[in-house]
Amino acid sequence: MPESEPSKSVASSAISQEQTRRESALVEQVVASFADTPDARLKTVVESLTRHLHAFAREVRLSDAEWEQGIDFLTAVGHITSDRRQEFVLLSDVLGLSMQTVAMNNPADNNATEATVFGPFFVNDAPIIEIGGDIAGGAPGQPCWVEGSVKDIAGNAVAGARIEVWEADDDGFYDVQYSDDRVAGRAHLFSDADGNYSFWALTPTPYPIPDDGPVGRLLAATGRSPLRASHLHFMVTASGLRKLVTHIFVRGDALLESDSVFGVKDSLIMDFDSQAGATPTPDGRDLGGEAWSRTRFDIVLAPQR
Amino acid sequence: MPESEPSKSVASSAISQEQTRRESALVEQVVASFADTPDARLKTVVESLTRHLHAFAREVRLSDAEWEQGIDFLTAVGHITSDRRQEFVLLSDVLGLSMQTVAMNNPADNNATEATVFGPFFVNDAPIIEIGGDIAGGAPGQPCWVEGSVKDIAGNAVAGARIEVWEADDDGFYDVQYSDDRVAGRAHLFSDADGNYSFWALTPTPYPIPDDGPVGRLLAATGRSPLRASHLHFMVTASGLRKLVTHIFVRGDALLESDSVFGVKDSLIMDFDSQAGATPTPDGRDLGGEAWSRTRFDIVLAPQR
Repeated sequence: MPESEPSKSVASSAISQEQTRRESALVEQVVASFADTPDARLKTVVESLTRHLHAFAREVRLSDAEWEQGIDFLTAVGHITSDRRQEFVLLSDVLGLSMQTVAMNNPADNNATEATVFGPFFVNDAPIIEIGGDIAGGAPGQPCWVEGSVKDIAGNAVAGARIEVWEADDDGFYDVQYSDDRVAGRAHLFSDADGNYSFWALTPTPYPIPDDGPVGRLLAATGRSPLRASHLHFMVTASGLRKLVTHIFVRGDALLESDSVFGVKDSLIMDFDSQAGATPTPDGRDLGGEAWSRTRFDIVLAPQR
Repeated sequence: MPESEPSKSVASSAISQEQTRRESALVEQVVASFADTPDARLKTVVESLTRHLHAFAREVRLSDAEWEQGIDFLTAVGHITSDRRQEFVLLSDVLGLSMQTVAMNNPADNNATEATVFGPFFVNDAPIIEIGGDIAGGAPGQPCWVEGSVKDIAGNAVAGARIEVWEADDDGFYDVQYSDDRVAGRAHLFSDADGNYSFWALTPTPYPIPDDGPVGRLLAATGRSPLRASHLHFMVTASGLRKLVTHIFVRGDALLESDSVFGVKDSLIMDFDSQAGATPTPDGRDLGGEAWSRTRFDIVLAPQR
């Protein structure tokens, strides 16, 4: 994986042999300080963290002022973090660490559907709906028919898979961001005997991650957008199979290449076909002439590890 | 510097080619997201940080639960940090990052005295004393005679160098940790025309860094002591020369190998010679029969960069 290896410092030629000796000796001294860690896994993690932290600082030749800026930044992240706001998770998200952790813990397995970030907006005990039911719960937005199947990697239909779905409304808000306690834009249903499912949702729209804190300032300073590509969340569980946490994205969305948390995977981009208002709906539902969209998402669950 | 390069993951052989492709592609995607950063230096820093952060997570194959523990740990560090307590600095200290930053920003230069960590206990406007004066200001501890010279790397005496000194008392407390506003255990003086200096201080004793927070729990979990090796702080400034921030340490101190913030350098360990109570003092001071100690610290200042 040469492309992901840290590169050598461009300034390394200007560093004396004695200076290099001192810096390397310090790294080894810090690593050695963890030698008596009782928990072997913790020892592995802190030793690796130490080596990579020092490799970063040495590669960029971190200045005293930059070290202070780093301390101040983390202090600000800590101070805005509360029971209702998790800025360290946001920081992990915008550095792609959250997505990398998801990727590592949901490794590629044949044609199994890719996982993506869980996000902060899932709620337990969302309402149950029948197949073909509506998750919108009154949330504003364009109706969207979603259908698909749940299978294992051998192609066997998975009946009775629990499918949790949740999404933001047309204004970019999840129900938990409303000022009242309404439940909207979320539900769960079960795949039928043939592993199929369908429901009404809202055509996904983009929204920003919270950008009024230090992470937002980091994004601004680096010319990045806080917007997430439009998406619909899925969490699918079925006995004996690996739990899948993922989204589907909207083909053609201008934000697919710049999703602020790196959640987009090519395999998760779906066609959301726009339907003129007069087009008959799949289940005969009367939308009163409103335009709607439809998409298909066939889910493949990996075996449990 | 092969000894400080991150090692390959032991589990890497179990990771499929497709999985490796996905993880590497994600790293490149995050790095690419910073391409439009207007400030070139910030771009360098965040790109390097991204590569090393992901290299760490991939090397240890960070689990979801460990990622959560990391978020919870940083949240606790943020929440204990206040105007009076800087737990992120402590974290940087115990991971050796503070000392590494000092080392990089005070590079080896011939026989120039090595720098070490600044610490949180320096105070501006400490009292001035004459050469031979006493910095203790009533702080409890064994008297210690400190003498030495200030020179540049060519061996020329540096007259009028400003020498700030500060230290903890016999109970391990700096004056700023006292409940009243007393100033004790700190002062400044100037080298004489021949570059020499001397003063009375206290024989240094060990003390712990604050260990009642998340950093203290990290030290406990990794079998490390919060204690700092006994030391006396110096900050020396002279026109045209590099400012020196350092400590001297006590040869024979059992904590020299386990200083919690990695501040000890071999070149900074001095002989503190114990003197029986009856021994005449260098300046004729009457210590009333009390035992005392003496040490010598010859300071060499590097040229300004």
